[in-house]
Amino acid sequence: MTVEKVNFEPSDLAYVPFVSVDNMMRNVRAVGVEGFMRGIAGYIEEDFLRWESFDKKPRIPAHAPQGVIELMPTSDGRTFGFKYVNGHPGNFRNGLQTVTGFGVLSNLLTGYPVLFSEMTILTALRTAANSALAATYLAPEGSTTMAIIGNGAQSDFQCLAFKEMVGITDIRAYDLDATASERLARNLNGTGLTVTVCASAQEAIEGADIITTVTADKKSATILTDNMIGSGVHINAVGGDCPGKTELHRDILLRSDIFVEFPDQTHIEGEFQQLGRDHPVTELWQVYSGKAPGRTSRDQITLFDSVGFAIEDFAALRYVRDLLPQTGHFEKLDLLADPDDPRDLFGMVLRSAAADGKAA
Amino acid sequence: MTVEKVNFEPSDLAYVPFVSVDNMMRNVRAVGVEGFMRGIAGYIEEDFLRWESFDKKPRIPAHAPQGVIELMPTSDGRTFGFKYVNGHPGNFRNGLQTVTGFGVLSNLLTGYPVLFSEMTILTALRTAANSALAATYLAPEGSTTMAIIGNGAQSDFQCLAFKEMVGITDIRAYDLDATASERLARNLNGTGLTVTVCASAQEAIEGADIITTVTADKKSATILTDNMIGSGVHINAVGGDCPGKTELHRDILLRSDIFVEFPDQTHIEGEFQQLGRDHPVTELWQVYSGKAPGRTSRDQITLFDSVGFAIEDFAALRYVRDLLPQTGHFEKLDLLADPDDPRDLFGMVLRSAAADGKAA
Repeated sequence: MTVEKVNFEPSDLAYVPFVSVDNMMRNVRAVGVEGFMRGIAGYIEEDFLRWESFDKKPRIPAHAPQGVIELMPTSDGRTFGFKYVNGHPGNFRNGLQTVTGFGVLSNLLTGYPVLFSEMTILTALRTAANSALAATYLAPEGSTTMAIIGNGAQSDFQCLAFKEMVGITDIRAYDLDATASERLARNLNGTGLTVTVCASAQEAIEGADIITTVTADKKSATILTDNMIGSGVHINAVGGDCPGKTELHRDILLRSDIFVEFPDQTHIEGEFQQLGRDHPVTELWQVYSGKAPGRTSRDQITLFDSVGFAIEDFAALRYVRDLLPQTGHFEKLDLLADPDDPRDLFGMVLRSAAADGKAA
Repeated sequence: MTVEKVNFEPSDLAYVPFVSVDNMMRNVRAVGVEGFMRGIAGYIEEDFLRWESFDKKPRIPAHAPQGVIELMPTSDGRTFGFKYVNGHPGNFRNGLQTVTGFGVLSNLLTGYPVLFSEMTILTALRTAANSALAATYLAPEGSTTMAIIGNGAQSDFQCLAFKEMVGITDIRAYDLDATASERLARNLNGTGLTVTVCASAQEAIEGADIITTVTADKKSATILTDNMIGSGVHINAVGGDCPGKTELHRDILLRSDIFVEFPDQTHIEGEFQQLGRDHPVTELWQVYSGKAPGRTSRDQITLFDSVGFAIEDFAALRYVRDLLPQTGHFEKLDLLADPDDPRDLFGMVLRSAAADGKAA
């Protein structure tokens, strides 16, 4: 990182561990995709169990007609974390990612960052881990078949997380774009999952214990209508995640027991925006901690209205930070000025100049 | 940065220019400290002149007893920027910087970051550039002598910015800790400034056209009392920058014409917190754009109640971004996942695994 140093090396205090995209892939491979998601899920559950110790702020958005950039900060009083994430639905048409991200974890007691990481891949992993974690509490016992509607970048991760954590063996895939389903089937080949590419959403949900919706277009849509949904399923609604973007018909919500991360945020961004704020929903942290029931009967329709919450990113970053000493897959960024005398920032610049014989 | 690549290089889309601490110092030296600050000041003035096109958000803080971490975002509708900055007054006692920071500039139309930069040094430079810029509108004509009270990490930069942009030739330095003043005098030796180390604040301000206060301790203090301030001076109040931290006696404020960056923020963080919110203050962008007068008479006491605003960081990051093609002093961070098919993030991980013969 600092190969061109003149005559001094920054102290260890100056360095922040950095996980590039390449190193994130190395870390994922070191553990295995499924194991990595299980690991993240464990950290998410741990952080949801101490839900009340977190500072829960709304996302801070910056809007343009093309999309949004959001900062998602949170803190547990000792550690601070935030994610930068964008959402630009049209990027796909220009060969860019619709969603990219990076994140930072810091020691709140000193203010110094302790991890800087890519979060495009990590967000995909934590989103799927989070869905599967919720399903371990909400899906019908013995679930083996999952319909997945919307077969874009998130779909592979969802299937593998549900295989690993819920025991899913059969995937029924549908996408408006059949090549997306074929891509998914190809990628999952050899993972132990049986993938059936379906010609319609209706066909995909036949016999499914779990229905995952993860479509990408911002335009509001009705992926599932009420008459499609029989009793006893678990719906994992991932794609409806911003104002004006929903995937389910409102009548499905009325028949379901709805589980959310953080009601105030879900009511703005999730399927929940179709209902009044006073409609009863259950917070997942209460289910995990035993304060509220998850699935209570075989016939119940459970719905996880997933929008993605800052604490999940915080947990994912914590998992990566704790993993790095074992894998060694990170670099060190020379990000923090660390003069010998903290009051002498200028002297640091001055002396670095003297080092290569130029005037400051 | 990516020396360990297996069998593929990320495309240019995946890379974000990164300015490390070492490269920031190289960039500063390439232009010269004074020229660098003049450059930033030009960008700040430019952005203040289009003040109304900016999305002005409050800082987003996370607090601990030891200090605060803040995110400071802003956007002009096409470009998004934010700074991460901490303030931990006790860090000094542990050999850490009291204030460190880094920042990001992004294309809001795609959501992709275009610059990631250290901002500990850059913030010091932009703060001084911002003070000197305000003084070009507010300080008495022909000012040559500046008192500087508080001789910590920001003081050197203040002196050089005022030399470069205002024409200051004589510095009268005072700090509770005499070694701090000696350090300042030593660092400014050979810069063309004459530095007189003074034994008291009272002595320092004798004959000064401009009084800069930039003390560091969080405890509220009265660096200047009313009877010390004669007519006709410009006060550049930099140190009072958070709730409960002020440097000037309230009576000085009542005799001064007060200029601020953003009244709502200054009333929380600046000297202005000592007055009612309805006390008249002038916004600097109105002075720069000719909508409000700056200094109107020789006898007037002008006061720039500086707290630091997100648009100044935005301008400083813009300056650095525009400088990089000339200096080449940056690295490329492999921060953004950029699969060949944007919908196939998992395939990217999968193929990277195949590349070194391991299972995903």
